Amino acid sequence: MPRFKLEEYARRLARTREAMLQRQIEVLLITSPENMNYLTGYDAWSFYTHQMAIIALDHEPIWIGRGIDVPCATATSYLPQDDVIGYPDHYVQSTERHPMEFIAQELLRRGLGGRLLGVEMDNYYFTARCFEKLQASLPQCTFRDASDLVNWVRIIKSDAEIELIRQAGVIGDRAMKAGIEAISPGIRQCDLAARIMQAQIAGTESFGGAVPGGLVMGIGPRADAPHLSWTDDPVGSDVVANIELGGCRARYHAGLARSVYLGNPPDQLRQLAAVVREGMEAVFSTVAPGRTCAQLEEVWRGVISRFGLSKPSRIGYSIGLGYPPDWGEHTASLRPGDMTELQTNMTFHVILGMWQGALSFVLSETILVTERGHESFCQMPRELFVVS
Amino acid sequence: MPRFKLEEYARRLARTREAMLQRQIEVLLITSPENMNYLTGYDAWSFYTHQMAIIALDHEPIWIGRGIDVPCATATSYLPQDDVIGYPDHYVQSTERHPMEFIAQELLRRGLGGRLLGVEMDNYYFTARCFEKLQASLPQCTFRDASDLVNWVRIIKSDAEIELIRQAGVIGDRAMKAGIEAISPGIRQCDLAARIMQAQIAGTESFGGAVPGGLVMGIGPRADAPHLSWTDDPVGSDVVANIELGGCRARYHAGLARSVYLGNPPDQLRQLAAVVREGMEAVFSTVAPGRTCAQLEEVWRGVISRFGLSKPSRIGYSIGLGYPPDWGEHTASLRPGDMTELQTNMTFHVILGMWQGALSFVLSETILVTERGHESFCQMPRELFVVS
Repeated sequence: MPRFKLEEYARRLARTREAMLQRQIEVLLITSPENMNYLTGYDAWSFYTHQMAIIALDHEPIWIGRGIDVPCATATSYLPQDDVIGYPDHYVQSTERHPMEFIAQELLRRGLGGRLLGVEMDNYYFTARCFEKLQASLPQCTFRDASDLVNWVRIIKSDAEIELIRQAGVIGDRAMKAGIEAISPGIRQCDLAARIMQAQIAGTESFGGAVPGGLVMGIGPRADAPHLSWTDDPVGSDVVANIELGGCRARYHAGLARSVYLGNPPDQLRQLAAVVREGMEAVFSTVAPGRTCAQLEEVWRGVISRFGLSKPSRIGYSIGLGYPPDWGEHTASLRPGDMTELQTNMTFHVILGMWQGALSFVLSETILVTERGHESFCQMPRELFVVS
Repeated sequence: MPRFKLEEYARRLARTREAMLQRQIEVLLITSPENMNYLTGYDAWSFYTHQMAIIALDHEPIWIGRGIDVPCATATSYLPQDDVIGYPDHYVQSTERHPMEFIAQELLRRGLGGRLLGVEMDNYYFTARCFEKLQASLPQCTFRDASDLVNWVRIIKSDAEIELIRQAGVIGDRAMKAGIEAISPGIRQCDLAARIMQAQIAGTESFGGAVPGGLVMGIGPRADAPHLSWTDDPVGSDVVANIELGGCRARYHAGLARSVYLGNPPDQLRQLAAVVREGMEAVFSTVAPGRTCAQLEEVWRGVISRFGLSKPSRIGYSIGLGYPPDWGEHTASLRPGDMTELQTNMTFHVILGMWQGALSFVLSETILVTERGHESFCQMPRELFVVS
């Protein structure tokens, strides 16, 4: 059974088809696992083999994937059996044949092969080879880039989605709390990570969690590296530990980052934490429908520049449905020049990572844009945690 | 510091350059995170943004990625600072500019842009857009498909790699044992998954684990779906629970699958388990250098066909270094027609998944091809586990 009510999928499809019409796309070929899930409910760890959801203006959605994954599609999507098609196993990672050739034949068989096709050109799972094989197999088709078409549809969340992200926020808080309770100079980084991930997956008594898009930690000499995994080493003393995790509920994410100091934090780090917190609260108090992503970053820049600080990377992005290795939606970013206007029911991961040598510090939360301002999905104090 | 000795990276590079020469490739553009790791040591959860390792015949390896990930590259690779290049953040998920444009300029600047370039056409992280942008930015270059070039180099493991896979096997055994000890009709699937993942990441007292390429479970009515995650529901009674996990050590994997029955197993399932075990042992006793992948599958087919069974999907594949969502190497598969000859120090995940309605059953182990035969990285009994 799919996660949402059928009416919700119908609304998503209607909005997707509207966007297709605007770009004159008749058939949209979806390879992003997030977007496949969003439009069909399909939710399986099968995206290491080529698969696709086909969304036509005049046809019900179709799923095509590896034969053994047909039961995964029927178990999780709302699609009728006839629209779930498996390709034979000899297409899997073959040097002789490619799943896109099978898919092209299926498009032709269903009368969808002579159209204007949209493809997700910059999606991880639409490889250069996928495009080459599709073009060669469908010479009569015109292809148009539809990267992020569905991602932009996804940027406004439904109430049901917001409820899941709220639950993800609760899970994220619990996982961070578990990490902060477990951390000590002597604990191995891998044991810390294990404790956090355990909390992320177990969730709460009322709802369970999933494997998030990522879990990263930068500890001690690696504190300025934002995207590392753990080592076997103990956390150590007189070091900062930067932890970024995602609460994840039904593949919906609430990103969350906090820093912990093991020992007595240097004044400089305490000051940095205070400035970043001030910056976060200034950004949050600016959030409202009609403001732009660039404006949020400008407010942040205003605060930190007063303290002689700068940050060369974006301070956030739209977040929601995702599979490893990402939870960002690849649409709006909080950075100079991004004129995306905030709208009610958008969700952003605001991540204020100051990666600068051993005195690095991270603070992030996931927020909802509301009619009057914002709501944070996080209840953690906005502070530098200290463990001595 | 990189995971292996510098001499090991030098050997890997030498073998890669040999393969490049055979295909007349002068510069190899690597986007697969596994292959980047294999050749440079780079190991970060940054592969959601475009990045690349550049391997030229006449130049030291170069890493190019997002600016904030430069500390990740210097912390984990052996590359000197000069060969670690970050692109500005406004290239990240931009509609105006693409990281491949930056990379093309860097290739030109270093005199590598007028060559015969190899690209990993069917790698997840080499999207259709990546190829389009590279071609447009380097019109004077000729591109040749080098999908899986490094993957085929990786198929023979070094002693140091085998040691890591052996450790991954120990972690996998522990994780499966933790799952079997935890499973009961009343436990929620998410709590079961949390327990298994905790064991996977904590590893042993001597070495820690990592997030594996996947963790899937098919329980009760979903037993025939090979690639699903867990739900919040209790496991239930009189059901089979199929669990496939990977012990993962420093990104090296040992895949492992077992089935558990909650209750008194039907005779038909017990018989299936016995046949599959017989099939596995027949396959394993056939493993030896010089045998082909297809021969292994043929032996398996011979055993199960005597019992009127068939399996439409491959029974295994080369396994090793990997990041989610996969641990397979996309090279040799144990299936009809695959004439890859087994060689000493190859490693395979032999996965005998009989996904057939409610009476599904899985049995898998990861093995090493040795001079005389094989060695399994798994110590778990090859049986249908029963919990009542």
